[in-house]
Amino acid sequence: MGPGPSDVPPRVLEALSRPTIGHLDPVFLQILDETQGMLRQVFGTKNALTLPMSATGSAGMETCFVNLVEPDDEVLICRHGVFGGRMAEVARRCRANVTLVDAPWGEALDPDDVAKAAKGRSFKVLAVVHAETSTGVLQDLAPFRTIADSCGALLVVDAVTSLGGVPVELDRMGIDAAYSGTQKCLSCPPGLSPVSFSERARRVLSTRKTPVQSWYLDLNLIGQYFGGERVYHHTAPVNMIFALHEALRAILEEGLEHRYARHRQQAEALWQGLDALGLELPVARGVRLPPLTLVRVPMGVDERAVRARLLREHDLEIGGGLGDFKGKAWRIGLMGASATTRHVELCLAALEEALR
Amino acid sequence: MGPGPSDVPPRVLEALSRPTIGHLDPVFLQILDETQGMLRQVFGTKNALTLPMSATGSAGMETCFVNLVEPDDEVLICRHGVFGGRMAEVARRCRANVTLVDAPWGEALDPDDVAKAAKGRSFKVLAVVHAETSTGVLQDLAPFRTIADSCGALLVVDAVTSLGGVPVELDRMGIDAAYSGTQKCLSCPPGLSPVSFSERARRVLSTRKTPVQSWYLDLNLIGQYFGGERVYHHTAPVNMIFALHEALRAILEEGLEHRYARHRQQAEALWQGLDALGLELPVARGVRLPPLTLVRVPMGVDERAVRARLLREHDLEIGGGLGDFKGKAWRIGLMGASATTRHVELCLAALEEALR
Repeated sequence: MGPGPSDVPPRVLEALSRPTIGHLDPVFLQILDETQGMLRQVFGTKNALTLPMSATGSAGMETCFVNLVEPDDEVLICRHGVFGGRMAEVARRCRANVTLVDAPWGEALDPDDVAKAAKGRSFKVLAVVHAETSTGVLQDLAPFRTIADSCGALLVVDAVTSLGGVPVELDRMGIDAAYSGTQKCLSCPPGLSPVSFSERARRVLSTRKTPVQSWYLDLNLIGQYFGGERVYHHTAPVNMIFALHEALRAILEEGLEHRYARHRQQAEALWQGLDALGLELPVARGVRLPPLTLVRVPMGVDERAVRARLLREHDLEIGGGLGDFKGKAWRIGLMGASATTRHVELCLAALEEALR
Repeated sequence: MGPGPSDVPPRVLEALSRPTIGHLDPVFLQILDETQGMLRQVFGTKNALTLPMSATGSAGMETCFVNLVEPDDEVLICRHGVFGGRMAEVARRCRANVTLVDAPWGEALDPDDVAKAAKGRSFKVLAVVHAETSTGVLQDLAPFRTIADSCGALLVVDAVTSLGGVPVELDRMGIDAAYSGTQKCLSCPPGLSPVSFSERARRVLSTRKTPVQSWYLDLNLIGQYFGGERVYHHTAPVNMIFALHEALRAILEEGLEHRYARHRQQAEALWQGLDALGLELPVARGVRLPPLTLVRVPMGVDERAVRARLLREHDLEIGGGLGDFKGKAWRIGLMGASATTRHVELCLAALEEALR
């Protein structure tokens, strides 16, 4: 119940441990096709270029920037936590010129601030974190397409902690590129990063003037393996794909709407319980992220000792704070298979005991 | 029995499917420490910076170049197959100036050619593939340290298809950086890339003038998670580490010397059997790689049809040729758990039947 990895259902672990087969085996290629199809459903998109990158979520972030950005491109990055800051760092390493729009830690970005920064300027990319894992803030993406259009930018979204837990609707929101991780609301082990690129993003990619600086993450090359040609690029992480395939099947069997409702219901129960314990939730209710809740550590409490005790006595992991909240907050995850009444009750009971 | 992934033993698949735990869980951190320790034994090194990168073998190659090379650095790359060519491509994307030394496909490099190219010049890196997976050639690394010293270069080695199958002795050979993959002679599923950097390579890394262009592969950052500080960088692929840990345990239980001997014995049996079938092995015996054997497709035989038939009728995968050998050769792997008498006999019987 930390900020991920979340609990992985037995059926997904079982799929993970199927005998390894070749990355060009017809059976595997069919599983890969089905995985792409299911990822499109969860991302809410028809994007052909929707696939799991063979590395963790942070590599998904890098995939978006190395493929879409060229040296000296102007990039507008919204930062309201660790992961917005990381996007800026990754963009700089692509030799982009980065302009930042900030919001205080624990708050959402004000779209007016973003619009102001975009005004009268031209950007290659506007990037924003949908669900900020470091603070538990859910950013409303509705205003961003208009802002991106006002400055001619591709809209890039970090959906690491939102995908599968709250609605991520790439096509409806006009998002050009998004990335996620498998170990959050998809409830698959860490190791893959689903990404999706719109047709507009693909055109930018295919008309680059310079080569993508990362060979491993170059979607011009990887697209030839995932497309019909099956050109060898690297050996796909076969067993992790088995697991993701099964995790996506479980998600679609549950139904996306039902899954989002479950995350919200369990989060409401957790928030109510934490409130009853007298604990403060620093993030305002309107922008609070159901899959991840920030809890202020009460004065005089040793937050590390509490976490160590939960792990020792209850086999229960919760996360510590990051950045401005380091040492001052806990992060409690209710992601995927971990968003259940049993988890909420265990966590509340264990915290009550530890804080008594 | 293709060029990887190889068969994965049941105990490794079982470890892979253990319940996912947190990447900062003390239990996991101990497994990570043990994994690093066992990797050092298999690599034949005391290098502190020895760890599994969270991506496949190709990302290990990129890790070596992005960390050691800066723009305009001179790099000397030996190419005797696909993977030498890929090193050149990756180095160019790091904006290095690449000088190539070539050997014909199916042959080893002549150290004199390499020494000639190095002579009177200065290079940042000299890179060579130990076991060329595209051709089945094993390169003798003994002369390379002297050549690297003659031009002031770090010696970088691709050990993807050698690690765990033939001796890889980083310290004895004076190798500064090496990378491998888990899905070859380590008999673990694909998804991780073990790398090892010498103290000299670490000094080059820590005194760079420019940031590493890949944030995800930046060993200055990753070293802080694997070192004592455990600074969060990205979420480690927990279950894949469980599997690698178990695969390495199995390797050390067998014993490295015994394992190398087994690979050689089974390869000798395969070569003898192929010879008895009248098939030609294009790679000279002295440089033939036990874990991967190149076989010339007889005149008039449809090589794809044979491979499809082996898969359909015997559940047996062998690989096609690459580069100069595309359509003209098969590649038969005897890697890790796939290097057994049962595998050799199955392959020979199936090939005999298919070619009758």
